[in-house]
Amino acid sequence: MPDNRRFLLKRRPDGAPAEQDFDLVTEDTPALNDGEFLIRNHYASLDPAIRGWMDDAESYMPPIPLGAPVRATTIGVVEDSKADGFEKGQWVMGLNGIEEYSVGTLGGFTQPIDPAMVPEVTNFLSLFGAVGMTAYFGLFEVCKPGKGDTVLVSGAAGAVGSIVGQLAKIHGCRTVGIAGGPEKCARLKDRYGFDAVIDYRGKDVDALSKAIGEAAPDGVDVIFENVGGDILDAGLNNINRHARIGLCGLISEYNSDAVGARNIWQLIVHRASITGLLVADYVERFGEGAQAMAPWAADGRIKIDEHIDEGIENAYDAFMRLFSGSNQGKMILKLA
Amino acid sequence: MPDNRRFLLKRRPDGAPAEQDFDLVTEDTPALNDGEFLIRNHYASLDPAIRGWMDDAESYMPPIPLGAPVRATTIGVVEDSKADGFEKGQWVMGLNGIEEYSVGTLGGFTQPIDPAMVPEVTNFLSLFGAVGMTAYFGLFEVCKPGKGDTVLVSGAAGAVGSIVGQLAKIHGCRTVGIAGGPEKCARLKDRYGFDAVIDYRGKDVDALSKAIGEAAPDGVDVIFENVGGDILDAGLNNINRHARIGLCGLISEYNSDAVGARNIWQLIVHRASITGLLVADYVERFGEGAQAMAPWAADGRIKIDEHIDEGIENAYDAFMRLFSGSNQGKMILKLA
Repeated sequence: MPDNRRFLLKRRPDGAPAEQDFDLVTEDTPALNDGEFLIRNHYASLDPAIRGWMDDAESYMPPIPLGAPVRATTIGVVEDSKADGFEKGQWVMGLNGIEEYSVGTLGGFTQPIDPAMVPEVTNFLSLFGAVGMTAYFGLFEVCKPGKGDTVLVSGAAGAVGSIVGQLAKIHGCRTVGIAGGPEKCARLKDRYGFDAVIDYRGKDVDALSKAIGEAAPDGVDVIFENVGGDILDAGLNNINRHARIGLCGLISEYNSDAVGARNIWQLIVHRASITGLLVADYVERFGEGAQAMAPWAADGRIKIDEHIDEGIENAYDAFMRLFSGSNQGKMILKLA
Repeated sequence: MPDNRRFLLKRRPDGAPAEQDFDLVTEDTPALNDGEFLIRNHYASLDPAIRGWMDDAESYMPPIPLGAPVRATTIGVVEDSKADGFEKGQWVMGLNGIEEYSVGTLGGFTQPIDPAMVPEVTNFLSLFGAVGMTAYFGLFEVCKPGKGDTVLVSGAAGAVGSIVGQLAKIHGCRTVGIAGGPEKCARLKDRYGFDAVIDYRGKDVDALSKAIGEAAPDGVDVIFENVGGDILDAGLNNINRHARIGLCGLISEYNSDAVGARNIWQLIVHRASITGLLVADYVERFGEGAQAMAPWAADGRIKIDEHIDEGIENAYDAFMRLFSGSNQGKMILKLA
C-alpha cells in the first residue's frame, strides 16, 4: 500500500492556530475491510468552520480528535475498493481529512460525483458545493430579499460572500459589499458587480456605520453576515424595519474571545431578526440550488473564483489564508 | 387654572440616571386652544423604555427634549375641554408626561377609556395595556411556542416577564424563570406558577448556563428576553434547534455601555433566531389580546401585580426601582 501523508491536529489551538498545533506525518495506508474503499484525495476544501471543529466544544459536529487528521471535505478518486458502487477510478466527494488517502465506508459521508456535470471538478467544493449552497439557501431561504432591497454582505470577497453578492444582484437587489483592502474592494466592483463597496480597514464602528449609511442611503434590508464584531455592529446601526440578518459566520471571532454583538438593541427598534444558518439543513435541496445556479455560471453572471494552493506540506499556510484574507476565492488545497 | 407640578428632564443621563438629571417644577397650566383638552393625570406608567428616550439617539421615537416633562403613558380624567368627544369627567389614556396636568389634542395619542371594562383602572397600564400586550403578542406572535415547549423568561418577576410566564403556562409550556434574589424567585413559583426558577445573583455565565441546563433538561425552545448581557449569553448556551428568541428588552444594558451578546454563534449551531419585538406593531390588535386574556384574569389564572408609588415628588425613586428591581409588579406612579 502507498505511503499516506496526513496533516494531524496535535494540540487544540488557543486563539489563532499555530504551526505547532499540527503535525505532518507519513503513515501506511491501512488494508481495506469489506465495505471500505481507498480514496486518493485530489483536493481538500479549507473552510472557516474547520477552526471551530478544532476546539473542544459541543457543536453541530464533534471536535476533531487530537491525533486525527484535520477534518475537511475532500474530492478524490477511488484507488481500491471492497465496497459495491465505489469502483476504482470513480470520483467521490466526502467529509474526510487533510491527508493524501482516506478510507471511505459504504453508507458513510462519501458519495460518487460526476465531473462532467461541472466546468471543473473543484467546483464541487465551491459554487456547486457547500459554499455555493450556503450562499443560495442562506440568501433566498433565510434572508428572503425582495427585488429592490438593499443587501449588505460582509466578508464580501470571500468564497460565500462573493456568490451572495452576485446572487442578490441577479435577484434585482442593490448590493453593498464590505472587504479588507483596496484590491479586494476593486474586485467586488469589477468582478462581482457590487453597487457599492466599503473597505473596513482602519475604520471603527462609528466610521463603518457612517460608510454603510452612505453606501445604503435607503437603509439596509438584508445583511448576510460572515464576519461579526465591529462589522455586524455597524450593520445593525443601518437596518430598516423588519430587516433580516442571516448569520452565516463570525470569522472575526473564531481566533479570539468573542466580542459579541453590542447593538442587538437595534433589533428591537426595527423589529428585525438575526437567524443562524447552516447549509446542512438544505442538503436534500442541493440539486435545486445547482439547477438554479448552473445557467448563471454558464453565462458568466456568476464568476466562480477558487484559490488553489498545492501540496499537503502547505496545509497550514493555506488554511491561515482564511484568516489573513490573502486568498482570492474559495480556498482549496491540491493534494494530487 | 391650577398649578401643574412637572417632572422635567434637565440633563441627559450618563449611565444610570441621577436625581440631578431631573427637575421638579411648578408651572401654570396653559389656557386651552380649540381642539385641546386638559387632563388631570391620575397614574403614570414607569417603563424601562423611558430610559432609552432620555438619550440623544435616533430610535423608534424622538428623544425627550431637554426641559420637557419625562415622557410616559398616563391615565387621567378630562378636567376641561375644547375638543369634541373629550367631555369633562371622561377617563383617558395617552402618551403624555410625568406631570399632574397634560394637554391633550384631538387626533393625538390620547384616547378615551372605560374603567368599567377592567377590574381596576390601573390595569390599563398593566395587563390591558402595553405591558400585557407586549407579553401576549411577543410570546404568541414572535416566539410562537408549541405546547410542551420549554420557555425561558428572563426578568421573570418583572411586569412583562411575569405575564409571559403565566401565558406560556396556560399554553401548556414548561416555564423557567430567571430573577434576582430569593424573594422574587419564590414569587415566580408560588404566584406565577413557573415550573423552575433560577436566581441569577452571584452567578457568572458558566454558572447561569449550568443552572439553566438543570432547569431545562430538554433544552430551551423559546427565550423571552428582557435582560440581555450574561443572562442572554447563558440562555444562548442552552437553546435547541430552531429556537426562537424574542428580544423584548435589554435592561442590563440601559444604564451602561452595551456588553452585547457574546454567544450569537449558538444561533448558527442551532439555526435559531433572535427577533426584536415592539408592542407598537400590534396596537390595532390590542382588542384581540384583551379579549383573550380577560377570562384568564377573571378566573385568577393570570395574576395582575402592580407596584404603585405615590406622589410626583417620588418620581425619581419610583423610576429607579425598575433598575434596582425593588418593585413587585408593574411600576406605576400615582399622581392624584
